[in-house]
Amino acid sequence: MTQPESQTQQKLLVRKIGIDTYQENVAYLHRECAIYRAEGFQALAKVKVSIDSRLILAVLNVVDDSIIVDEDQLGLSEQAFKQLVVKEGTEVRIDHAEPPSSMDAVRRKISGERLELEDYRMIAHDIAQHRYSKLELSAFLVASGQAGLDRDEVLYLTRAMFESGEKLDWDEPVVVDKHCIGGIPGNRTTMLIVPIVAAHGMLIPKTSSRAITSPAGTSDTMEVLAEVNLSPHTLHDIVRHQRGCLAWGGTARLAPVDDILISVERPLAMDSHGQMVASILSKKLAAGATHLLIDIPVGPTAKVRQMRQALALRKLFEYVGDRLGIHLEVIITDGRQPVGHGIGPVLEARDIMQILNNDPAAPADLRQSALRLAGRVLEFDPDVRGGHGFAIARDILDSGRALSKMLAIIEAQGPQKTCCEPGRLSFEVTAHESGIVAGIDNLQMARLARLAGAPMDKGAGVDLLKKLGEPVEVGEPLYRVHAEFPADYQFARTEADNNSGYHIGKADQIPTTMTE
Amino acid sequence: MTQPESQTQQKLLVRKIGIDTYQENVAYLHRECAIYRAEGFQALAKVKVSIDSRLILAVLNVVDDSIIVDEDQLGLSEQAFKQLVVKEGTEVRIDHAEPPSSMDAVRRKISGERLELEDYRMIAHDIAQHRYSKLELSAFLVASGQAGLDRDEVLYLTRAMFESGEKLDWDEPVVVDKHCIGGIPGNRTTMLIVPIVAAHGMLIPKTSSRAITSPAGTSDTMEVLAEVNLSPHTLHDIVRHQRGCLAWGGTARLAPVDDILISVERPLAMDSHGQMVASILSKKLAAGATHLLIDIPVGPTAKVRQMRQALALRKLFEYVGDRLGIHLEVIITDGRQPVGHGIGPVLEARDIMQILNNDPAAPADLRQSALRLAGRVLEFDPDVRGGHGFAIARDILDSGRALSKMLAIIEAQGPQKTCCEPGRLSFEVTAHESGIVAGIDNLQMARLARLAGAPMDKGAGVDLLKKLGEPVEVGEPLYRVHAEFPADYQFARTEADNNSGYHIGKADQIPTTMTE
Repeated sequence: MTQPESQTQQKLLVRKIGIDTYQENVAYLHRECAIYRAEGFQALAKVKVSIDSRLILAVLNVVDDSIIVDEDQLGLSEQAFKQLVVKEGTEVRIDHAEPPSSMDAVRRKISGERLELEDYRMIAHDIAQHRYSKLELSAFLVASGQAGLDRDEVLYLTRAMFESGEKLDWDEPVVVDKHCIGGIPGNRTTMLIVPIVAAHGMLIPKTSSRAITSPAGTSDTMEVLAEVNLSPHTLHDIVRHQRGCLAWGGTARLAPVDDILISVERPLAMDSHGQMVASILSKKLAAGATHLLIDIPVGPTAKVRQMRQALALRKLFEYVGDRLGIHLEVIITDGRQPVGHGIGPVLEARDIMQILNNDPAAPADLRQSALRLAGRVLEFDPDVRGGHGFAIARDILDSGRALSKMLAIIEAQGPQKTCCEPGRLSFEVTAHESGIVAGIDNLQMARLARLAGAPMDKGAGVDLLKKLGEPVEVGEPLYRVHAEFPADYQFARTEADNNSGYHIGKADQIPTTMTE
Repeated sequence: MTQPESQTQQKLLVRKIGIDTYQENVAYLHRECAIYRAEGFQALAKVKVSIDSRLILAVLNVVDDSIIVDEDQLGLSEQAFKQLVVKEGTEVRIDHAEPPSSMDAVRRKISGERLELEDYRMIAHDIAQHRYSKLELSAFLVASGQAGLDRDEVLYLTRAMFESGEKLDWDEPVVVDKHCIGGIPGNRTTMLIVPIVAAHGMLIPKTSSRAITSPAGTSDTMEVLAEVNLSPHTLHDIVRHQRGCLAWGGTARLAPVDDILISVERPLAMDSHGQMVASILSKKLAAGATHLLIDIPVGPTAKVRQMRQALALRKLFEYVGDRLGIHLEVIITDGRQPVGHGIGPVLEARDIMQILNNDPAAPADLRQSALRLAGRVLEFDPDVRGGHGFAIARDILDSGRALSKMLAIIEAQGPQKTCCEPGRLSFEVTAHESGIVAGIDNLQMARLARLAGAPMDKGAGVDLLKKLGEPVEVGEPLYRVHAEFPADYQFARTEADNNSGYHIGKADQIPTTMTE
C-alpha cells in the first residue's frame, strides 16, 4: 500500500460543524463545491485535511444545504475540528487519502493470516490517531473476532493497546484492582471490596464505568452516595489518604484505543474473548495495577454460559497477564441469577449500605460473593497467608471497619446532598403458580430495570423478593418494579406481563451451581 | 435476539438535514433535546423512527448546533428522510432499536458458522430495507470475506441478493452479457464486443458502471461519443431496434443489496472472491441475462495474480452460475500490462474508433482480445458452430459492419455535440536506459492517469507508446501523459518521475503469458 497522495492545491475555509460523530472524523463538503466536483470525491471516501504540517484523516459526507456548509467551506465534525487544532475560517487543504497503511495488516487478518506484534503496534497507533473510519474499525474488530486471534495475538494486541496511551504510576509495590466481565444485574461487589481492601491498608484506586447496556454501572450506583466525577488531582489525593476510591474512569487518556474500539463494539454487540481480554488488561495496566482479580460469572443467561468457556477465558487472561507482568488471578462465580436484591442505582446502593451496616435484611449472596472476592484480593498482600483472606475480609466487614472506610471515602469524594429514594411508581409481579423459583433470567431482569428508567432515573429498577430455590405460593410477589415516570412504568409493566423473567418449577430444575 | 422495543411515546418534529450519508440512515438529535437526555441514547446507537405504521432504522448523531437541528426536532439525513416518506414538521416518534434480527446470523458467521439460504435471505432483506448501519455492513462483509464463504454460501448469497430487487425480462431466449472483473487499464473490449455481437443479431443490452477507483469505466469512455444516461424506456427502445446498447447502469433497483454492499466495500478496499461472484451474478441475473461471458485477466499487477487463483475463481463462477440457471463461460486473459494504447476516456475512445475503422495505427492487442471475447459470445448462438466465433467476429469487424452498428448505437443514444481532444498539457516519459520493455505496472499507470485528471477530465490520461517486449533506446519516449489543468499536470509529472511504472530489462524478464 502506498502512502496518501495529493491531487490538488486548492484550499477551503474550515468550519466547525456542531455534530458529534463520536470517535470518527467526518468532513463535510457542499455538493456544488468546486473541489468536490473536480476531484471526483465519493461519499464515504477517505480524505486528508491539512494545514501546515498538521493533518487528519476523515470520512467525507456530502452536503446539499449551505446553512450547514457553504461551497467555499470545509466542514469538520466536532472531534475532527478539535483534532486539527485550527481556528474557524482558516484555509485548509483537502486531498484524497488512501486508507491508513496498517489497514494492509487488517486485510491480511481478514484473509486468515496471523499478525505480529509490529502489525498490532501500527494498527493501535493509527487507531489512536483517529485514522480509522468506523468501517475500518468494524473490519478490524470482526477480523480479529471470535475465530480470529490466537493467544499470542491477544498478547500483542493488549501490549499495543497499552502502549498507545499514558500510564499511571502509583509508586507502590502492590496496587490492586478487580474487574468483573459483567452481565449479572445487581452484582455490585466492587463497592464492598474497595472499602474492605482499603481498610486493610492495600492500595485500591478503583475507577469504574457507567452503565453502557446494563441498568447500572458501579459509577452510577456510587453516584447515589457520592460524587464520582473527580479531577485527576482530587482522585490521587483521596487515594493517598484513604488507600482507595470509587470514581468514574471518565474519558481518560489511558489506553485510548480501547475507548475507540468499544465505541464500535457496543453498537455491533460484538463479544469476542480476545478483544475482551485485550480491552480489560490494557486498561488495568495503564491504570497502574500490579495485582488484578478477574471475576467471570457463569450461568445459563450470563455472558459466559458454560464452564469450559469460562476455563478457556481464564487461561487466556492468565497467559496474557503473566507475559505482561501483572499478577493476575481469575475467579469463576455463580452467574445463574442476579446478585443481591436491587437492580438499579438506588436499590443497589441500599443493598450495599445494608451489608456494610450488617443489617439482617441485607442480601446474603451479595455479601458472600463480595467477601470471597475481597478475600482473594487481600491474599495479594504478601503478609496474608493463603486461604486466610476470607476470614480477614469478614472480620473487617463484621467489625464495622469497612463501613467506616466507605463513609470516609464518601466524605472525601463529596457526599450527595439529596437522598435518593426508589421510584415512587411501583408494581409487584406475582407468581402465576406455586412451586420453587427454578430460574431467573439475567437478561430479562436487566431489560425490565432499563425499561423502568434505570440508570438515568436513579430510583428506577427492580427489587427482587424471591431468589433461586425459594418456595413461592401462587399470587405471592416475586419482585417489585420502581419507576419515576408513568410512561416508563407502563412500558416495564407491559414487558413484565409479557415475560416475567421468572421460571417457577421444581427444585431439580434449578441449574446446578457453576462455580469453581 | 428480541425485536426492537419501545421505551417512550414522546414525539419530535421531523426535519430534513441536507447531508448525504450515502446508504446509511442517520438521525440527528440535539444534545439538549429532552428525549435524548431522558432516554440515555448513545451516539452511534441504533434508533427507530416511526410514524403511523411506517418505520425506519437509523444511526444516531448528536448535534450541538440549533441551526442544524433544534431541541424539539428530529433531523433525518436525505436518504432517511426520503425513506420515511413524510413532510417536514410532521410529528414522529423515536425509540431505541435493537440491531436488525438478521445480525444474529452475521454474528454466527463471525464466529465461524456456515449460514443457510434462509439466513442470507433475511440478511439481504434487512440490507435492502436500509436496516444495516455502515458498521453492520462492514461486519457482514468482513465476516463473509476471503476465508468466510464456502461455495454453497456464495450461491445462497447470490440468490438472496438477486431476489432482493426487481428483474428485467427481455422476453427472448438468448440475452447475452459480458463482464470483466477489472483491474487492467485500457481494457475497453466491451465497446467492441457490443457492436460486433449486436451486428450479428444477438441481444446484448449492455449497461456498465462509471469508474470507481480506475481512470475510466466503460460508461465514462462511451460518454465521449454518446449520451449514456438513458431512461429505462429509451434504453429498451434502443435495444429493440439496435439489438444492443452501451448505457450507464445507473442507480438501478436491480439487486439493490449489491449497490449498498459496494458502498462499503469500496472504502474498505475489500476484495473477496465470494462477494465478487455474488455481486456480478446477482446483477447480471437481475438485468435479465441468460448467457454470460466472464473475463478474468491474470498478471503480476492484475486483480488476480496467479493462475491457480484464476482457476479457483472460474470454478466458483461456474458452480454458482450453473445452479442459478445462467449459461456462463469464463475466459482467462492476459493481464500482464494495460490493454490498448490509451488510458482515460478520450484516449480509449480513440483506440476503439481506430479498431472499428480498421485503422493500421489501432492497438493490435485490444483488437485481438475483443475478437477473442466476442467470438466466445457469438458461440452462445446455437447456430454458431463451436470454434467458429472468432472468425465470424473478425469478419464483422473487418467488413465495417461493427463500425456501422456502433455509429447506429451512438446515433440512437444521442451523439456528443462537442468533440473531445486529449488534454492540451502533455509530457513524455522516456527510457532511462536501452533494453526491452520487461514490465508495465497496471496499478501505477492507472494512478498516473488518475493524477492527470481521468476520468473527470475526459481528455486526461496516459497514451502508451511502447508495450511489453518492444525494444527501446535510452531517451526514447515510453508514454505520453495528457492533462487539462496545470496542477494535475504537475502531480502526474512528479509521480512519473518518482515511479515511471515501466521496467526496462531483458527479454527473459518479461512475465510469461498467463492465459488459458
